[in-house]
Amino acid sequence: MTRQILLKSRPVGVPSVDNFSIREIELPQLASGQVRMTTHTMSVDPYMRGRMNDSPSYVAPFQVGEPIFGGGIGLITESRADGFEVGNYVMGFLPWQEELVMDAPGLRVVDETIAPLSYFLGILGMPGLTAYFGLLEIGKLNQGETVVISGAAGAVGIVAGQLAKIQGCRVVGIAGDDNKINYLRDELHFDVAINYKSTSDLEAAVTAACPSGVDVYFDNVGGAIGDAVISQINKFARIIICGQISLYNATSQPVGPRVQDILLKKSALMQGFIIGNYSERFPEGLSALAQLVSNGKLKYINTTYHGFEKLPEAFIALFEGKNLGKLIVEI
Amino acid sequence: MTRQILLKSRPVGVPSVDNFSIREIELPQLASGQVRMTTHTMSVDPYMRGRMNDSPSYVAPFQVGEPIFGGGIGLITESRADGFEVGNYVMGFLPWQEELVMDAPGLRVVDETIAPLSYFLGILGMPGLTAYFGLLEIGKLNQGETVVISGAAGAVGIVAGQLAKIQGCRVVGIAGDDNKINYLRDELHFDVAINYKSTSDLEAAVTAACPSGVDVYFDNVGGAIGDAVISQINKFARIIICGQISLYNATSQPVGPRVQDILLKKSALMQGFIIGNYSERFPEGLSALAQLVSNGKLKYINTTYHGFEKLPEAFIALFEGKNLGKLIVEI
Repeated sequence: MTRQILLKSRPVGVPSVDNFSIREIELPQLASGQVRMTTHTMSVDPYMRGRMNDSPSYVAPFQVGEPIFGGGIGLITESRADGFEVGNYVMGFLPWQEELVMDAPGLRVVDETIAPLSYFLGILGMPGLTAYFGLLEIGKLNQGETVVISGAAGAVGIVAGQLAKIQGCRVVGIAGDDNKINYLRDELHFDVAINYKSTSDLEAAVTAACPSGVDVYFDNVGGAIGDAVISQINKFARIIICGQISLYNATSQPVGPRVQDILLKKSALMQGFIIGNYSERFPEGLSALAQLVSNGKLKYINTTYHGFEKLPEAFIALFEGKNLGKLIVEI
Repeated sequence: MTRQILLKSRPVGVPSVDNFSIREIELPQLASGQVRMTTHTMSVDPYMRGRMNDSPSYVAPFQVGEPIFGGGIGLITESRADGFEVGNYVMGFLPWQEELVMDAPGLRVVDETIAPLSYFLGILGMPGLTAYFGLLEIGKLNQGETVVISGAAGAVGIVAGQLAKIQGCRVVGIAGDDNKINYLRDELHFDVAINYKSTSDLEAAVTAACPSGVDVYFDNVGGAIGDAVISQINKFARIIICGQISLYNATSQPVGPRVQDILLKKSALMQGFIIGNYSERFPEGLSALAQLVSNGKLKYINTTYHGFEKLPEAFIALFEGKNLGKLIVEI
């Protein structure tokens, strides 16, 4: 018997722990080509909120009464699949479940000698690749440009900011508490970090932080924070729409200042993307990121919850801005 | 003595003829390198509205008490400039003035044997180039894609739609009266033309017209028309922000549904541009357009006002949607 966490009901607005339930299930016998594993670490990510709605997004909705899935790492305890040994750590798209029997295809063995295991859910996983390809393919940074990042202390933001610094840009991060601000400024050496919650006039703060205007805006947040940044863009600016976490719990169509006229006046580009668009190029991105991590040029940090039953709470914490860096749950 | 039309006061909201005044001026003697000319045809264009505000846009504001400038064609009546002969037609950026003395650099002799003179203000001028480079550089059309064009019966829209048809796309035009709709459908062979003024549910009309969704939206209009189209975009859609005429007379920041979340879900791109960004490539664009015109593959149409003093009225008519094709004033 093992436990799994289900979507009990679809959240309306902000999710609560009541939207989730736990049930016990019997695990099947291991068939050929399968592995048995113990879940080691799970990733919780903002995009998962979209899957809890019953509406088409870039990934199919979760089903009520079925388990939540997310990125995770497991330890193989039994194997009937070639190339997967007992004692290997593997990553994949896993249900929220303590013990698993899974088909081996779709799992990937991770080498824990390269980096801490959790990094494969963060800087050497989807969030790191998201920062890398967003900047490379849409941001197209030039040395000396000003790059503003919202959600700057999140799993993607801290990678995006460091990559922009490495490319010789002025980097301005926006985040929501002083602990994050201090980390961005003191540990990651962002040029300016703005606490939007304690700033009375965010547009003025962005203006002050960007005396030459904004060339690239890496947007993880949207809403009023985005408005304040977009009003400051330069000619030929690039706006990377990576996430809109401030709006994921909206219960009606979000409304705000129209951006089209600004894009027109500034000959600017705004582009949304999901990391899956670049899946064929993941090896290139991972190789670049791994090298920067091993050279000590990229730092990373996690906020860790402990215990399987904390998964819903950890997920909800994303929308309360509680995480510095990648939010993970050690099972 | 000759007459010129001045910006008398900055319009607030919709411009009126009271924002303009006429004065008589003395023309200077012709200096070396100058030509004297009679204004033949003037272009009035939506972007000029932005220049009437005292706020930075992509071109500097007009000054109160100074003449309005726009694209125009003149007939040389006296020349002290090499390469400019009496009897030549030249085009350039001209003040609203009946007779002119101008420096020759900045003027370009046009060959009226290639196409009717007025075409050099339209399909073989700024509007044609705008359609051409907007589609080429941002739209990046693929055969079989669905292209929606707002302001479809305007100076830019009729070129964009025909170019998209030539590239094998399904073309849906949106315009504001049945005369325009008939022209788009019967003369230019758009697949569907939608009269947004007589359609009760524009979003439903766009859905019906685009059974495979919208791959490219060439937006000249913005506002609610844009909202209806953008809600229908496909994955990897490209939205070309060419104009926002529905908002140019707004007296406060226009507000509407946020587009960022749609761009994110659809991995879509929205990009503003002005034709000046491509100035180094005008010869390439003009050559392509001229060939299509001379092959009979591109049609063009003007709405013509007659008489110098009609310039303000013609300009205002742009915002009332009175023009089918390019709006020009024969002086």
